[in-house]
Amino acid sequence: MEKTRLEAFSDGVLAVAITLMVLELKAPVQARSLADLASLTPAFLSYVLSFIYIGIYWNNHHHLFQATKSVTGGVLWANLHLIFWLTLFPFTSAWVSQHFDASAPSAVYGVVLLMAAIAYYILQTVIIRAEGPSSLLARAVGRDWKGRLSPLVYLAAIPLAFVHPWIADGLYTAVALLWLVPDRRIERILTGV
Amino acid sequence: MEKTRLEAFSDGVLAVAITLMVLELKAPVQARSLADLASLTPAFLSYVLSFIYIGIYWNNHHHLFQATKSVTGGVLWANLHLIFWLTLFPFTSAWVSQHFDASAPSAVYGVVLLMAAIAYYILQTVIIRAEGPSSLLARAVGRDWKGRLSPLVYLAAIPLAFVHPWIADGLYTAVALLWLVPDRRIERILTGV
Amino acid sequence: MEKTRLEAFSDGVLAVAITLMVLELKAPVQARSLADLASLTPAFLSYVLSFIYIGIYWNNHHHLFQATKSVTGGVLWANLHLIFWLTLFPFTSAWVSQHFDASAPSAVYGVVLLMAAIAYYILQTVIIRAEGPSSLLARAVGRDWKGRLSPLVYLAAIPLAFVHPWIADGLYTAVALLWLVPDRRIERILTGV
Amino acid sequence: MEKTRLEAFSDGVLAVAITLMVLELKAPVQARSLADLASLTPAFLSYVLSFIYIGIYWNNHHHLFQATKSVTGGVLWANLHLIFWLTLFPFTSAWVSQHFDASAPSAVYGVVLLMAAIAYYILQTVIIRAEGPSSLLARAVGRDWKGRLSPLVYLAAIPLAFVHPWIADGLYTAVALLWLVPDRRIERILTGV
Repeated sequence: MEKTRLEAFSDGVLAVAITLMVLELKAPVQARSLADLASLTPAFLSYVLSFIYIGIYWNNHHHLFQATKSVTGGVLWANLHLIFWLTLFPFTSAWVSQHFDASAPSAVYGVVLLMAAIAYYILQTVIIRAEGPSSLLARAVGRDWKGRLSPLVYLAAIPLAFVHPWIADGLYTAVALLWLVPDRRIERILTGV
Repeated sequence: MEKTRLEAFSDGVLAVAITLMVLELKAPVQARSLADLASLTPAFLSYVLSFIYIGIYWNNHHHLFQATKSVTGGVLWANLHLIFWLTLFPFTSAWVSQHFDASAPSAVYGVVLLMAAIAYYILQTVIIRAEGPSSLLARAVGRDWKGRLSPLVYLAAIPLAFVHPWIADGLYTAVALLWLVPDRRIERILTGV
Repeated sequence: MEKTRLEAFSDGVLAVAITLMVLELKAPVQARSLADLASLTPAFLSYVLSFIYIGIYWNNHHHLFQATKSVTGGVLWANLHLIFWLTLFPFTSAWVSQHFDASAPSAVYGVVLLMAAIAYYILQTVIIRAEGPSSLLARAVGRDWKGRLSPLVYLAAIPLAFVHPWIADGLYTAVALLWLVPDRRIERILTGV
Repeated sequence: MEKTRLEAFSDGVLAVAITLMVLELKAPVQARSLADLASLTPAFLSYVLSFIYIGIYWNNHHHLFQATKSVTGGVLWANLHLIFWLTLFPFTSAWVSQHFDASAPSAVYGVVLLMAAIAYYILQTVIIRAEGPSSLLARAVGRDWKGRLSPLVYLAAIPLAFVHPWIADGLYTAVALLWLVPDRRIERILTGV
């Protein structure tokens, strides 16, 4: 089964999700000056963070399927499951930006990040099962400490959001920065071959 | 005629439809706590169901065109007809989520499901007519009991929505779960060859 | 220069435009019964017509570029010019659906149809100039009576909208039906070769 | 690493951004006549300008990657960085159209144009570093006076917006027109080879 359409559909959903989030950035009707824009700071920061997260997922998805040869029915559904959680980013991103100082939005933001990380892990596992343990992908993923650390940080951040939302927000930002350092794992293996 | 653009355009519309539906998930302006999110439960459940349905259609469309060789003018229009009904999902999904306890939204949700199922059947028939009765697709579809059962269930659910909307909603959910079990029909035939 | 990206970008814009139009179909907040849906009839009819028009343009664009070999800088801009007018369909479609009995929305709907038809004609001309007068496309287009008739009908419909908007709306519908009859011109020539 | 998905994702985001901007074009609820449309003139002009800018970026992006052979991790992120600034066009475009006579929206519009130009320059530089100084792209870009002039004009326009917003708007329009003249640089080199 070809992987082209799976990639195209995923790209489409991510492209729409990333662009819809900017709709949350609405200048208040009476805003006319630079000072009036200050009220958009939380919305802007929340947009930047969510944009980076979608970017990271697109990037990793890109690497993952580059190392994938066969697409089974199970892969299709595991991919749709990942996409489901990613489509919720515009919702959680909007809620956080409206109540930057509230705990629940920040915690729910983390829950969706956690679910997306789990969905990515499931997708990766389903693909490796199809590709075999000696595949390029299986070897590359073996050293995936970022993929293992991230859900643990989200898991810690969710309850910490109820201590103060900015602790959780800080942790989400830290994980995003961790991933921004380009992921050379799969790339290196692929080049080595 | 190439089928690439037909697939790309269909993917695009489905990707936008699936992502637009999440716009319906809007936290009320004053919502700040987890308890406030409870009011979003119907909207969330309705989103999950509609997401799964779009996913099923994308999946089946993917399989259908993988088994298709030639694209005629008739196929282009039969495909646009299917897309037409699928673009109405964000509308019916939004209406159901606003009035979870009303009969009309649930019945109309079923009407659009029924029309999409009929449109899919027409598309499949137009393709088989072009491919010939001995084609891979014709043989694979011959055993398509899910495709035959689904519209009958929708047909029963529409009047039952006026007894109680949750009967209809339960039936729509049952059909969705039926399809979630991965469709190995076409896949198996293709592999057998 | 490759034509793949031009096609992909055009498909993307048309897919988004077609799906955004459905946002205009919003059930009134208190609408709970089938009778309440009656108020959506103009919006629904307007959606159906605009959907068909976008479908026709997608279809013709598909045929046009299938018969095209080289893409020049001029073709890129002529294509963007066509896309510009097509992106205005959601606006004119929404305005018509809000004031089904007013003349101005119906006339403006026609102006955008006319501009899109002219933009399509320009695009076709730019492509034929690049392909040469003996190209497949040049021969196929030579008999394009639909492409010549349509703008004349729009031109007549625009002032007639000020007599009564439904005259204009009827003419737009008639042209759409004319095109729904599958366009076998280019297809036939291509097959003949 | 393949460049297909990077192109497809960028196309998707630009297609959505260009189409979302048209949502800003909303006829006032009571608008029924052509005279009522006059109030939309600023929104329409702002849409035309932003559409042209997205078109220019799509066009240049198309040329840039046509001359690109290898896609590295750095290119992926430099491309996402460019996309980030382009997704802000719907926001700045909407703000300008709501307050056509205010300085801050016009200045912020220029800031986003400037950041996008810088992001494009970074992307180009990252690609040239990967391709090598004797690559087709490096030679083509050597004569890129438009790419060097544009950010200087934005830089001048931003403070001038506080003298009068229309001075800045005029400069943005002038730069757009400059680019509309089709960019034959890369095209010529490619043909020469």
